[in-house]
Amino acid sequence: MKTVWEKVLKLGRDDPRRICHAFKVGLALTIVTIFYFMRPLYEGMGGNAMWAVITVAVVFEYTVGGTLSKGLNRAFGTLVAGSLGLGVHYIASLAGDKGEPIILGASIFLLASASTFSRFFPGIKAKYDYGVLIFMLTFSLVSVSSYREEKLFKLAQERVSTVAVGGSLCLIVSIVICPVWAGGDLHNSIVKNLQTLADSMEGCVEEYFNEEEEGDELKTKDTPGLQGYRTVLDSKAKEELLANLARWEPAHGRFRFLHPWKQYLKVGTATRACAYCVEALNAATNSEYKAPKALRQQLKEPCLKVSSLSSMVLRQLSMDIDSMNRPSSIEPLIDSANDAVMELYTALKSLPQAHPNFRTAHGDTVTGPALMDLLPLANVASILIEVLGRIDAIVSSVEELSVRATFENHMPANATAKSEHLANVNSDYGSQGPHVVVEIKGS
Amino acid sequence: MKTVWEKVLKLGRDDPRRICHAFKVGLALTIVTIFYFMRPLYEGMGGNAMWAVITVAVVFEYTVGGTLSKGLNRAFGTLVAGSLGLGVHYIASLAGDKGEPIILGASIFLLASASTFSRFFPGIKAKYDYGVLIFMLTFSLVSVSSYREEKLFKLAQERVSTVAVGGSLCLIVSIVICPVWAGGDLHNSIVKNLQTLADSMEGCVEEYFNEEEEGDELKTKDTPGLQGYRTVLDSKAKEELLANLARWEPAHGRFRFLHPWKQYLKVGTATRACAYCVEALNAATNSEYKAPKALRQQLKEPCLKVSSLSSMVLRQLSMDIDSMNRPSSIEPLIDSANDAVMELYTALKSLPQAHPNFRTAHGDTVTGPALMDLLPLANVASILIEVLGRIDAIVSSVEELSVRATFENHMPANATAKSEHLANVNSDYGSQGPHVVVEIKGS
Repeated sequence: MKTVWEKVLKLGRDDPRRICHAFKVGLALTIVTIFYFMRPLYEGMGGNAMWAVITVAVVFEYTVGGTLSKGLNRAFGTLVAGSLGLGVHYIASLAGDKGEPIILGASIFLLASASTFSRFFPGIKAKYDYGVLIFMLTFSLVSVSSYREEKLFKLAQERVSTVAVGGSLCLIVSIVICPVWAGGDLHNSIVKNLQTLADSMEGCVEEYFNEEEEGDELKTKDTPGLQGYRTVLDSKAKEELLANLARWEPAHGRFRFLHPWKQYLKVGTATRACAYCVEALNAATNSEYKAPKALRQQLKEPCLKVSSLSSMVLRQLSMDIDSMNRPSSIEPLIDSANDAVMELYTALKSLPQAHPNFRTAHGDTVTGPALMDLLPLANVASILIEVLGRIDAIVSSVEELSVRATFENHMPANATAKSEHLANVNSDYGSQGPHVVVEIKGS
Repeated sequence: MKTVWEKVLKLGRDDPRRICHAFKVGLALTIVTIFYFMRPLYEGMGGNAMWAVITVAVVFEYTVGGTLSKGLNRAFGTLVAGSLGLGVHYIASLAGDKGEPIILGASIFLLASASTFSRFFPGIKAKYDYGVLIFMLTFSLVSVSSYREEKLFKLAQERVSTVAVGGSLCLIVSIVICPVWAGGDLHNSIVKNLQTLADSMEGCVEEYFNEEEEGDELKTKDTPGLQGYRTVLDSKAKEELLANLARWEPAHGRFRFLHPWKQYLKVGTATRACAYCVEALNAATNSEYKAPKALRQQLKEPCLKVSSLSSMVLRQLSMDIDSMNRPSSIEPLIDSANDAVMELYTALKSLPQAHPNFRTAHGDTVTGPALMDLLPLANVASILIEVLGRIDAIVSSVEELSVRATFENHMPANATAKSEHLANVNSDYGSQGPHVVVEIKGS
């Protein structure tokens, strides 16, 4: 009992909007029930008033987009199926007493099969799955009721009006009381994933280079903060769902109607590609075969610089998306990161001479083990370089997003912050010369 | 119009069970409608017979597990909510005319809020989401109807019986006519992913080493077959869904009730970890910076051998799961793969001496560029070694699966096939001595 309560508290603390959502659903259902209690309305809506209750229970989703998508799907599915049911009923009634059930049965069979098959189309599955289901259901009900009860129009009309009442109530409650926007969630998820990735990468590299060497003992490092990239690896399904729901949402907050949600998915894909690299980086730094500490020290500075600048680019992108700024101000950071990669290359090239094993090698006897010591380290360095390549892909996808979503340009304020950032990096690792200095181009 | 038809054909050709499923839904709906047409049954079930139609439309899912899960959730949700609704109604009726609506409203508000919140628990979300929804819906309906129409028992009883009729019909059609088992699909998906991964890895390494060198021109290789691992990367959501549904399914074919479906998820996770590595391998082999062909030739043989043996292990695991054999017969293959890794190590170690740039180096002047040429190749080799490590994790998860699922041991027949396999590998790459010969241990 106590653990259940702890779980409830944890769920609520992780996202207080969940508690709010639960009360919203309770409220909407209670309101629709009170509606029902009032006799005049009850008479007006007929025995079908329960459709309003059902609609509220079924349509109310966590996000506004989800509620809208289900509500509209339900309304349109009901409307189209109702009209079609009437039409089929009219044709069937012309066929006489014997023909009628056959025509009705055949039309139900064919329409149900066709609708079910259409749900396999990815586009329909993503957007209209629920509408098709309701279409199938309502069509069957209307056809059957018509045959039985002959009060076709009334049934169709009642269902549509009750669905409309229930749906509107859901929408109003969903939007008025602390609304949860799928679009906003998608936006925040992308922002957070970039941040997480930056933290994981930087932490992983720092731990690798700052770690004390304890003999050959293998350290399994599972610091939770460094494992954050794992949530990024599996973010695809969630992001696609949110993007599908976000498309139904009206303009809200900083997002206009038809905000380029699909472009967020592209940023997400590029972020995941980068996360795969961070996964490889994590594997390489935790590998059994480790370069000796003395060797690691020689690449420490350039590696830390590349990772620090790469994380900075990711963080800046994250902040730019979050505040909806043009990421144009990111160019100097990327230039610095590319310079840092060149430095890393140079350091890598000069390694064999610097390493004592190589220095003592005379004639043909270049010692083997030195190379094997070198490889794990070189591996880490190559992955770092690859990471930067993938960050470039993220940058271009974010740039496209900023154009499509008409992000604003708030360059000057940020540039100052950034030069301070860079100054810190340079002082941390010792400035390597004028090429790391911020060049604020064309601003 | 033509393109729509082509899409329909493609969807059908990709998985003919989709067409079958569409007709099954059509059939079930038509049967339930005919049921309705028959006056005696109609009288027996009352105006609520439409619940049977609704149940069929809503409950019929693609997989047997999905149908069962929805049907049982719907039945139990209805039953529990019906009983609870009766109880609350009894208590409310004691409170007099003024207290009754307050008690009913409050209980609806509280129960709806609590149920909605409970849907955020991952365990409930995965298994009982639909049941909780139906519980909430039915409870509201029963409470409200009781207050209005005073024919509580009849309503509850009718709903349960019609839901039962609709649900059973769905189940019968779903199981009798070419059933789609979620468990079988999960099983096949795991089998196929292992196969895909083996193909991607082997193809990628082969292309890298057999590729003609065309100056420094960067070849972007997007052979579709080699990109198969990408579907593996994003397989998590689908596998978890299937495993959740599979748990509802009865014994079928080779799977008994409560087959260890969760263990399949562990195999899936290990497979994905390996797929991340193949992603890195793909990036490394397609990298801009490539080792010169002469250098690549020196590692060609051991690398191809590791990749070929690793793929063989994956394929053998895939076949073992598919035919539900104990993977104990895989040990010799793994031993060979480990030997191949040791050979690759030796080859890597001996590279500097063998490479002309290193050989001509006298005194302290070990030339830098040779190392930079070497690194991309060493990178590929390290990833290959890492791949084998992750395959080990797959092997142990499959072994655990084989124990839990009590796979049979059909060793002897397979062992022969395998020694032929191995003989081929050895002849392909030239046997390296007795350590690659199959050692059939303890069989």
